[in-house]
Amino acid sequence: MEYRISDKMKDMKPSAIREIFKALADPTIISFAAGNPAPESFPVADLSRISADIFRDSSTAALQYSITEGYPALRQDVIDRLSTRFGIGRDFDMTIITSGGQQGIELLCKTMCNEGDVVICENPSFIGALNAFRSCGAQTVGVELEEDGVNIEALEATIKANPNAKILYLIPTFQNPAGTCMSLEKRKAALALAKKYNLLILEDNPYGELRFAGEEIPTIKSMDEDGVVVYSGSYSKVLSAGMRIGFICGPEPVVQKMVVAKQVEDVHTNIFFQMLCHRYIAECDMDAHIEGIRALYRRKCGLMLSELDQHMPDCVKYTRPEGGLFIWCTLPDNIDQGLFVKKAMEKKVAVVPGQAFNCDTAAPSQCFRINYSTPSDEQIIAGVGYLADAVKAML
Amino acid sequence: MEYRISDKMKDMKPSAIREIFKALADPTIISFAAGNPAPESFPVADLSRISADIFRDSSTAALQYSITEGYPALRQDVIDRLSTRFGIGRDFDMTIITSGGQQGIELLCKTMCNEGDVVICENPSFIGALNAFRSCGAQTVGVELEEDGVNIEALEATIKANPNAKILYLIPTFQNPAGTCMSLEKRKAALALAKKYNLLILEDNPYGELRFAGEEIPTIKSMDEDGVVVYSGSYSKVLSAGMRIGFICGPEPVVQKMVVAKQVEDVHTNIFFQMLCHRYIAECDMDAHIEGIRALYRRKCGLMLSELDQHMPDCVKYTRPEGGLFIWCTLPDNIDQGLFVKKAMEKKVAVVPGQAFNCDTAAPSQCFRINYSTPSDEQIIAGVGYLADAVKAML
Repeated sequence: MEYRISDKMKDMKPSAIREIFKALADPTIISFAAGNPAPESFPVADLSRISADIFRDSSTAALQYSITEGYPALRQDVIDRLSTRFGIGRDFDMTIITSGGQQGIELLCKTMCNEGDVVICENPSFIGALNAFRSCGAQTVGVELEEDGVNIEALEATIKANPNAKILYLIPTFQNPAGTCMSLEKRKAALALAKKYNLLILEDNPYGELRFAGEEIPTIKSMDEDGVVVYSGSYSKVLSAGMRIGFICGPEPVVQKMVVAKQVEDVHTNIFFQMLCHRYIAECDMDAHIEGIRALYRRKCGLMLSELDQHMPDCVKYTRPEGGLFIWCTLPDNIDQGLFVKKAMEKKVAVVPGQAFNCDTAAPSQCFRINYSTPSDEQIIAGVGYLADAVKAML
Repeated sequence: MEYRISDKMKDMKPSAIREIFKALADPTIISFAAGNPAPESFPVADLSRISADIFRDSSTAALQYSITEGYPALRQDVIDRLSTRFGIGRDFDMTIITSGGQQGIELLCKTMCNEGDVVICENPSFIGALNAFRSCGAQTVGVELEEDGVNIEALEATIKANPNAKILYLIPTFQNPAGTCMSLEKRKAALALAKKYNLLILEDNPYGELRFAGEEIPTIKSMDEDGVVVYSGSYSKVLSAGMRIGFICGPEPVVQKMVVAKQVEDVHTNIFFQMLCHRYIAECDMDAHIEGIRALYRRKCGLMLSELDQHMPDCVKYTRPEGGLFIWCTLPDNIDQGLFVKKAMEKKVAVVPGQAFNCDTAAPSQCFRINYSTPSDEQIIAGVGYLADAVKAML
């Protein structure tokens, strides 16, 4: 049997991060490669108690087929929080529940892009989104990311050069992998460009609740008066990643089509956990819970930065994040990045090589991404030490 | 803002069944339109007890990100049951967990089909699958369904006429909507044709465990020695539909690509419920539980058939199912089917008009589908009476 795989899928490979995960089966390896929330961030006792309540008083609804748009009470929770917390939502918007933030990204691309259409992305960008666009047969075209967001002139030139661009994909707040925040001016400029060139912005904001330093910057969606922005969010980093619950808020004609696309992908998101989320929000103090996660990550990020400051040679540059889960490091030109990642793994520390996040996967990178939410304090201290040793040995 | 929806999605509409569901918000309506399992089929007490155990002893793993292929112990459960119960699985096969049977169908189409490629289907067929194929930009081409499965000569002619056909989609056991079972001879013939013309068969078997009368017929996958068949199954009809857990067993090169496609759709299926399924299978008597569901549906189907036998005019023909959830009814030519469906709704009985299941949605139908798993006994008795009245009033 000769398997005639579709053009869009035949060259696709599992993400590089996935491949690294396989090496992590070795328990002696310190993983800075994951993007997992800290297990302490899961409110286990509350979820367990509410789960028992649901089995007792609503088991039929919680185990039966449900509607594609999502559990109505949870949709209302999302609408309320987006509005009060972020100023998001206008009359033209519609909000639905998705199976994690990932699904919203894929659904929007499927809804908008024909094979060969272009999605303009920050370069580097989130590998899960880049692969979602590729899996729909869309091309990813990158615009260089600066410390305060994409270069706006380069963005306009890229839009002009790609008349079949349908989506501008941005992670303005605590960008993954670079950890940068897009400035308010650039957010406004990107919104104006999207409007001018009739392009949808997909604003991906999985880390928006996780700011632990600095001043908040308004989301692009909060400034959207014309139905130009589709906003994607998630409960993965504040309640549970494994339950797979996210949401989309965007202009109703687009989101209605995304509902049709979602219906044929999974009918609906696990309804028991949608109910669990809703009751958690109704019965517990979500703000206090999130404040606890922020304090945890402020401390863990601070620890990793202080270890880097003490031990890493000056030639390695790294970001000082104000939120999110990652630090983005840049090696000097005289260090071969591929060799460094290999040497780090020999010292039992896993990092993600920067080229995994490139729009053009063949392009080289001097960067690597490290994570502070998953490893223990001891692992952070030991792992940064090993990374510093690896750099020193290569100087 | 002008929204430039993709070609594949722009003409897609929510399924007709969905639209009927909206009318069901009226609690006085008797719904024969759903395909929901009976709530009595959910083993609530066991699931509740095991859920508490998972929160107590494995909460981190149950709430954290997991791997795309699925929870290893549950994959092994699926492999074991497919092998012992159905004789399914060879060395070349790989088994993964999906977010319901629906996701496996969509993933296979995305993995195999370029826009414009053809999926050959039984006509009529499952609307969720037809829409999944359309959402991938594939064309659905129907082959007439007979009482013992598709006409094999017509199938070969259709394959020859469509060299860009990639998938042959079949529901050989308790076909949805027609309730028919494909004969062993036709199963063998379809397998031989797929092999001859290098076409994958997608064997969809959500109801395979729900036989309550007649003799079991081997699945096509159990006869697949060449990696021609991708088999789709689900726990929706035996444990819980709302949890969204299904599985795929097929040739490894194809299923590996489906894993990549799944990764960018939802990363993985809700891991808590995957663990719950595994523990249910390990700790409880799944065979006895399924035997109970079979007895329930044998009784409910028998009740609906006996009411039809007593009250429905002879000019209406209907199937006598040996399993599954549906009875498929055919009106005489002198009754306008659209008008009948409308009159039934006026009498507060919802049925699904047959054209919803046509590959060519513009083609007319004299048929309608009714369900016996969801309504109560009282609703079955009253609803069949109203349907009979509606027919009599139109004679």
